[in-house]
Amino acid sequence: MRPRLQRAALELFSERGFDRTTAAEIAALANVTERTYFRHFPDKREVLFDGEAAMQRSLADAVANTPARLAPLPMLLQAFLSVVPMFESDRELKERRHRVISATPELQERELTKLAHLTDAIGTALEHRDVPPHIASLAATCGIAVLTRVRLEWLAGDTRDYPALLADAFADLASLFDLNAGQGFSSTAV
Amino acid sequence: MRPRLQRAALELFSERGFDRTTAAEIAALANVTERTYFRHFPDKREVLFDGEAAMQRSLADAVANTPARLAPLPMLLQAFLSVVPMFESDRELKERRHRVISATPELQERELTKLAHLTDAIGTALEHRDVPPHIASLAATCGIAVLTRVRLEWLAGDTRDYPALLADAFADLASLFDLNAGQGFSSTAV
Repeated sequence: MRPRLQRAALELFSERGFDRTTAAEIAALANVTERTYFRHFPDKREVLFDGEAAMQRSLADAVANTPARLAPLPMLLQAFLSVVPMFESDRELKERRHRVISATPELQERELTKLAHLTDAIGTALEHRDVPPHIASLAATCGIAVLTRVRLEWLAGDTRDYPALLADAFADLASLFDLNAGQGFSSTAV
Repeated sequence: MRPRLQRAALELFSERGFDRTTAAEIAALANVTERTYFRHFPDKREVLFDGEAAMQRSLADAVANTPARLAPLPMLLQAFLSVVPMFESDRELKERRHRVISATPELQERELTKLAHLTDAIGTALEHRDVPPHIASLAATCGIAVLTRVRLEWLAGDTRDYPALLADAFADLASLFDLNAGQGFSSTAV
C-alpha cells in the first residue's frame, strides 16, 4: 500500500508540482480513499519521506556490525559499503523524488531535517562503538557529507559504481588536510 | 532598529515561547508599530535569522583573504580564526537565541537551512580559491560541522577560548582516519 501511494504521489508531484497536488488526488490515483491515505501518512509531504526510519536503522545496524574496530571514518566506509544494495535500489523512483524535492523549498527543509536525524543516528551508533561523542558527531557529519555527494553523483549517472564512488569520496575526505594531494594546491605551510 | 526588535523578540520568545508570541507584541515591546516591524522582517521567525547574510559574507571574505594557498581544511581554520571576534560577540543574545531555537522544531528546520546556505557560501568561496567543486563541498560541510560543535562548546561555557576550541576541533577532524589517534580505538586494519 505505501509503495503504491508513493508512486502515485511522485507521479502527480512530477506532473503538476508539489504545491498543486492534494492528498485526495494521490489517493484517487492509487485507487484508495483519502481516509486510507491519511491512515498511512499525516500529510502529503510525508509520503516522500517514508523510508527515513528504515534508512536510520539500516545505517545504525551497519555501523554496529562492522567486523573490526576501526577509526571512525574507515568504520563508516565499511558500514556504507555493506548497505550498497539499499543505496542502489529503486533508481527511477529516487531520481523522480530528487527532482521533486529540488524544485520545492518546503521539501528541501524537510530533507535537511531528515539528514540531521540520520547524522544523529550515525553519531549514536559510533558512540556505541566507543567513539567519544565530540568525535562521533564530527565523523557522522562527514559521513553524511560523503553520502550526499555520492548520491548526487550516482543520480547524475556517474560511470563509477556505488562502491567506487564511496571509496573516492572518502579518499577526498582524507585529502582535505593534505597540501600535496594532487588537487592542484600549492604547498605553502600553515 | 533591527537589534532593538531582536532583543524584544528574544525577550518574549524566552518568556512565553515562540508559538505564543506575535509580531505585534514584539513591535509593542520595542515601542514601534507593527508596520515598522514588517518593514524589517517578513514574519516573526526571521527576526532570529537577521545575521545570516552578514555571516555568509564575512566567512566568504575570510576564505578569500587567507594569506597563503593552503589545503582546504587548514584554509578554513585560518579563515575561521580571522573572524573569531564575530563568533564571540553578543554572547548573552546568542545563548538566548540558542535556547529558543532548541525548544522550537520549526526554528530548528530554519536553522538547518541557514547552515546549508552557509555551507554553500563557504563551498563557493573555496572554489574561488581553486578548490575543485566536489572537494570544496566536502570541505565546507566539514568546516560547518566544526563551527557547529565549537559554537555548542562555547555556549556551554567551555573553559577553552574560541581559537583553542577551533584548533582542537580541526585536530579531531584530522584524526578521524587515524587508527592510533589516542582516542582509544584499537588498530585492526581496514
